[in-house]
Amino acid sequence: MSDHLVSGLEPPYYTVVFTSVRTEDDHAYARTARRMEELVREVPGFLGYESARTPGGIGITVGYFRDEEAIAAWRASAEHQDAMRRGRADWYERYSVHVGRVERSHGFERG
Amino acid sequence: MSDHLVSGLEPPYYTVVFTSVRTEDDHAYARTARRMEELVREVPGFLGYESARTPGGIGITVGYFRDEEAIAAWRASAEHQDAMRRGRADWYERYSVHVGRVERSHGFERG
Repeated sequence: MSDHLVSGLEPPYYTVVFTSVRTEDDHAYARTARRMEELVREVPGFLGYESARTPGGIGITVGYFRDEEAIAAWRASAEHQDAMRRGRADWYERYSVHVGRVERSHGFERG
Repeated sequence: MSDHLVSGLEPPYYTVVFTSVRTEDDHAYARTARRMEELVREVPGFLGYESARTPGGIGITVGYFRDEEAIAAWRASAEHQDAMRRGRADWYERYSVHVGRVERSHGFERG
């Protein structure tokens, strides 16, 4: 992951907050994660994402989407659905997903 | 940080997504972060938070609030405002804040 932040988006847009605790099963996880990064970029209305994981702790990924249709298209992707099934079977102890409509945002950048 | 995930909240509620890239200035950062964790718990309508940081990469903190009033109360805290000023002066290269109203959420927990 780079240290690029998603910023400067014009509201309204949506944040999909995915928080997770991983299992110790890493088999094919990194490869699948990279594939999902490629695949989501093809979704019309996908605006970007960020991901962070504290070693030994939780992971948080935030996906940014223009509208509900974009989120629905991403959820409906067959390859993504396979990955989600695999995630529940093997890679995640637990996770939560929170879909929020963003009406305001702001940022700071060192001058 | 623990590996506790915020889950099971009844919509509507709000997510405040704070993404950041840190400077190398750690002076008083950890102490202030702990103090903010204490302080935010006193805000009526605060529902929880999660935080993750990839070593050398970005950090993501998600705060969960019942309503806009709770977010406004947290923003108005004098001690929090001091910490935000200090963050811009010393601790952050850049950050973004995205406030979203959550209408739906779901989760998974290994059986």
